[in-house]
Amino acid sequence: MRSPKVIPTLLLTLMSGLAVAQGESVAELAYALDTFALLMCAVLVIHMKPGFALLEAGLHGSKNVINIFMKNYATFAIAGIAFWAVGFSIMYGSSLFISGYEADLYPGAADFFFQMVFAATAATIVSGAIGGRMKFGAYLVFAVVMTAVIYPFLGSWHWGGGWLEALGFYDFAGSSVVHAVGGFAALGGVLAVGPRLGRYIGGRVKAMPGHNMPLAGLGVFLLWIGWFGFNGGSQLAFSSVADAQAIATVFLNTNFAAAAGAAAALLLSWGVYRKPDFSMTLNGVIAGLVSITAGPDVINGIWAIVAGAIGGVLVFGSILLLDRLKIDDPVGAISAHGTAGIWGTIAVGVFGGANIGVQVIGTLAYSLAAFAGSYALFMALKATIGLRVDAKEEVTGLDVAEHGAAGYLNADSLNDPVLVGAGD
Amino acid sequence: MRSPKVIPTLLLTLMSGLAVAQGESVAELAYALDTFALLMCAVLVIHMKPGFALLEAGLHGSKNVINIFMKNYATFAIAGIAFWAVGFSIMYGSSLFISGYEADLYPGAADFFFQMVFAATAATIVSGAIGGRMKFGAYLVFAVVMTAVIYPFLGSWHWGGGWLEALGFYDFAGSSVVHAVGGFAALGGVLAVGPRLGRYIGGRVKAMPGHNMPLAGLGVFLLWIGWFGFNGGSQLAFSSVADAQAIATVFLNTNFAAAAGAAAALLLSWGVYRKPDFSMTLNGVIAGLVSITAGPDVINGIWAIVAGAIGGVLVFGSILLLDRLKIDDPVGAISAHGTAGIWGTIAVGVFGGANIGVQVIGTLAYSLAAFAGSYALFMALKATIGLRVDAKEEVTGLDVAEHGAAGYLNADSLNDPVLVGAGD
Amino acid sequence: MRSPKVIPTLLLTLMSGLAVAQGESVAELAYALDTFALLMCAVLVIHMKPGFALLEAGLHGSKNVINIFMKNYATFAIAGIAFWAVGFSIMYGSSLFISGYEADLYPGAADFFFQMVFAATAATIVSGAIGGRMKFGAYLVFAVVMTAVIYPFLGSWHWGGGWLEALGFYDFAGSSVVHAVGGFAALGGVLAVGPRLGRYIGGRVKAMPGHNMPLAGLGVFLLWIGWFGFNGGSQLAFSSVADAQAIATVFLNTNFAAAAGAAAALLLSWGVYRKPDFSMTLNGVIAGLVSITAGPDVINGIWAIVAGAIGGVLVFGSILLLDRLKIDDPVGAISAHGTAGIWGTIAVGVFGGANIGVQVIGTLAYSLAAFAGSYALFMALKATIGLRVDAKEEVTGLDVAEHGAAGYLNADSLNDPVLVGAGD
Repeated sequence: MRSPKVIPTLLLTLMSGLAVAQGESVAELAYALDTFALLMCAVLVIHMKPGFALLEAGLHGSKNVINIFMKNYATFAIAGIAFWAVGFSIMYGSSLFISGYEADLYPGAADFFFQMVFAATAATIVSGAIGGRMKFGAYLVFAVVMTAVIYPFLGSWHWGGGWLEALGFYDFAGSSVVHAVGGFAALGGVLAVGPRLGRYIGGRVKAMPGHNMPLAGLGVFLLWIGWFGFNGGSQLAFSSVADAQAIATVFLNTNFAAAAGAAAALLLSWGVYRKPDFSMTLNGVIAGLVSITAGPDVINGIWAIVAGAIGGVLVFGSILLLDRLKIDDPVGAISAHGTAGIWGTIAVGVFGGANIGVQVIGTLAYSLAAFAGSYALFMALKATIGLRVDAKEEVTGLDVAEHGAAGYLNADSLNDPVLVGAGD
Repeated sequence: MRSPKVIPTLLLTLMSGLAVAQGESVAELAYALDTFALLMCAVLVIHMKPGFALLEAGLHGSKNVINIFMKNYATFAIAGIAFWAVGFSIMYGSSLFISGYEADLYPGAADFFFQMVFAATAATIVSGAIGGRMKFGAYLVFAVVMTAVIYPFLGSWHWGGGWLEALGFYDFAGSSVVHAVGGFAALGGVLAVGPRLGRYIGGRVKAMPGHNMPLAGLGVFLLWIGWFGFNGGSQLAFSSVADAQAIATVFLNTNFAAAAGAAAALLLSWGVYRKPDFSMTLNGVIAGLVSITAGPDVINGIWAIVAGAIGGVLVFGSILLLDRLKIDDPVGAISAHGTAGIWGTIAVGVFGGANIGVQVIGTLAYSLAAFAGSYALFMALKATIGLRVDAKEEVTGLDVAEHGAAGYLNADSLNDPVLVGAGD
Repeated sequence: MRSPKVIPTLLLTLMSGLAVAQGESVAELAYALDTFALLMCAVLVIHMKPGFALLEAGLHGSKNVINIFMKNYATFAIAGIAFWAVGFSIMYGSSLFISGYEADLYPGAADFFFQMVFAATAATIVSGAIGGRMKFGAYLVFAVVMTAVIYPFLGSWHWGGGWLEALGFYDFAGSSVVHAVGGFAALGGVLAVGPRLGRYIGGRVKAMPGHNMPLAGLGVFLLWIGWFGFNGGSQLAFSSVADAQAIATVFLNTNFAAAAGAAAALLLSWGVYRKPDFSMTLNGVIAGLVSITAGPDVINGIWAIVAGAIGGVLVFGSILLLDRLKIDDPVGAISAHGTAGIWGTIAVGVFGGANIGVQVIGTLAYSLAAFAGSYALFMALKATIGLRVDAKEEVTGLDVAEHGAAGYLNADSLNDPVLVGAGD
């Protein structure tokens, strides 16, 4: 923030009569615009971090909010370091290792930064599904392995130029690479850790509603906002007319699908329950977004609406089905990211011209591999450091049990707090 | 997110010696910058959606928060589809219908996307004012008609090149077209649905304070942030020196007016109540922003401060007046958007060089037409599907009555929840 | 939002064959990109305003949330006017006074707008540290003097081209100029106003944990997001290849340091308390960010991680030390901004090639001067209008005592509210 560097602009002016220098200037400007746009899109994606944290916190009990925020902060911090130290080179080849790495259209640092926030997203999807009963330390180990190895290895299959890329698989921004991977890794975690205490008693599902709907409502708005960076930024270039047209199309189709997913889940819950349901509507938004993420550049207009609406219907059915199977996902992450992620990938075949067979192969490969890797990892953690807090801690809540503090204090207890946060 | 498209940049470099190709490249870059900037501004405007939801939720009781979020989500979803299917062509003429539509400076999709978030804003303004007592289904019908017909039809008068445009009416970003329209549509809704139970008993106004001030406080910060996209993006072009100067001026004047509106309402409430009032300060921010929205490019510096401060004073008086008239607006939307919207439009005549008479005609036309259209629609709904929940539902709260779930659960009730959210 | 201005683009196309005009066009585009990027960065920085408000609100009791939001709104409003009317010319010289002022790379309005949000940040840092016991009016006077005089005068030493600039002092985005200044101004305020009632009884520190951790958790995510604008925007130029590379590096190093600060504080609290602590982790994020703020362009990769981690360790120790000294900072602002600000400034010497001696001189000068100026001002306020609310008001909470309203109402009290907000 010292004196602005005026030299480049002065140079531009001085060189104005020189066509050759001019060409360099135009290419330079394109490089600068591509860089700035990619960084802004990455910052939009980072909005998804508080988005997930708020959604998960709101849909859990008030006794688990600190634990949820701690997991989300830790995931982003871990991704920021582990994906740099290890993951990026696994995903994009050793020659792309970040030190000295240069991309074509913008600095390597910008490219890495954008890819890193995707790795963090894939891992974060898991944190909500296993909420309320997993040990904090066990989750941290998962987050390290997920962002350093699992996500990068799976990502290499397509975005790293691997076998799915060779097959012609198409996943523009990650319906499979990020969301199905995250959603089915969540399934692995949920099966390994088991349902929350008291969730399934006899043949019945006990409702365990979230404690704070405004948090959840804000969270999904932040996800919606962040998704424009997620999908729009995945164009990876911004400075040509064709790129500009593609990005505008991507923004619009992303919004169409989110709106349609919300509308479908809202109306379906209204029909089935006789009341329009809030958490279903929120999951409808996410499912709509995930459903367009593989093809926001090629599934256009009315078809983006249809794809998103189908996502909204699928997430509704998937949430009910998982509960029937006694698979306890407190936030619906397996359904909104996993189920909708498979659908979104196939939708590019149905509506966007990709080869349906290849899309099916690719998304199943991603889903199965993510599930298997995650499940194996969580079971290994279960056999070693332990995966689940004990029953008393779960009833008390992870905030006090794992972090020694309460997420909320009311006015009365403030005058004589019984719960004392360490470090306060 | 596959391999970046390097071809355009390579081409740029190869063409660097060719002056003609060079010219195309510069125009191409300008197109790309205009596109990206407009999309970023649209995303900023979308921050206003959680902004409104949080403000409204915070200023209502805790029993109505799900209903408020559901209305805000539904409004944005509806606008995203209805303004595309119907509204845009009404507002900008059939030749501009979105399919195949191309704008001059950027893709048609970007232009539509930006205009759509404005339509959503106009409708959302209404949701808070009629909060706590209107049937969800009736509101949804309103949101469809508002974003598909009322707002587009009224918008066509000015931004669509209609009679007010021909008269020389000036409303840069929508003090009248969006905010007075939204505010007076809210007045129509409030008169049709009536005040909340117990609000006006005998000659007295019973205070019904909101339940969560941090939500309201966050909401207005998001509105303030979003407004930079709202006003700044309304320049609609970003790649010339003149445009850049205009946009910087717009950002600065927008902030001046918001700051002044906050300060004026804070100080006025301090003087009148002997204590600086929070909800008045929040409405002062909004009123300040609305007051500059018609002329952020032409009301400069000290005059932006004066315009915003007058808005802060007017919103204070307007809120008191409406309560005296037994017009129950729980969030102050009629005053902050309607009253300040009229003032902001006239302010362009007073401080910005526009014809005052035309400004008065235009803003009154917008206010009256929006009120009349909204009132007629809501009265038609009252006569058919019904507008208001029954008294028992209103006392229970719309969250349980309309959506079958509670917005909050405390720690005790979590162990044995009595309120069970459908779909959880 | 009227018809887009197509003339510039048409002109660009028409001029495409003219190399000279071409040169002007490229310079024009660079100017437009620089302007837009700086404005977007400023808007990101504004995300830090709700960030601070939420963090402070969450870490205080529920009886003080309105007061905290009021201070944060007032600070931003005051900065927006006072830094324009007075502060900017003090900081950058009278020739740069905003009227007619033009910067080199973008409009003067954009330059001022960006600098203004920094002034607001410096003042806002203080509001949390003195929370819960200072009179609202006294704080307002401080905010005016801070943004109009203290911050601008101190800022002139470096960014205004003063004696520290002449010495070769290096502070890219303000580890000292903004954060140490804010942190040590906070220390002045805390010493002047004294600790909260009951905080230090006998030789013991009574824990007074915050009432709402989700608010604090969201707040720090917003700070993290805003910091990309804070550090990235401080490059002040965006349209050359060198600038693009610098900005991408800045974004990445900023994130490295935040991640490392979080990780260090999390792990350290885990080791010391046997439980990973949430508020320490949050302060670790902030300390990591402050630690890189002086040199995000020159402290690269692993060294950014090391610098951030040291910041996370220092904030932990600093918070414990201040409590031992009975210096009551409810939010840790003195440690996260002051202590880490000193470290971050020195870190540019250790890891970034700056002269360590000059860095030490500069940061100590900033810290001492900010402390002295703030302490003198607050003591003067104490001797005149009074600094502290009386004990009864402090126990009641500042929301009711100073603003006549409650921050929260529960469902029961809503049916018959005993606390009535003025103006509702």
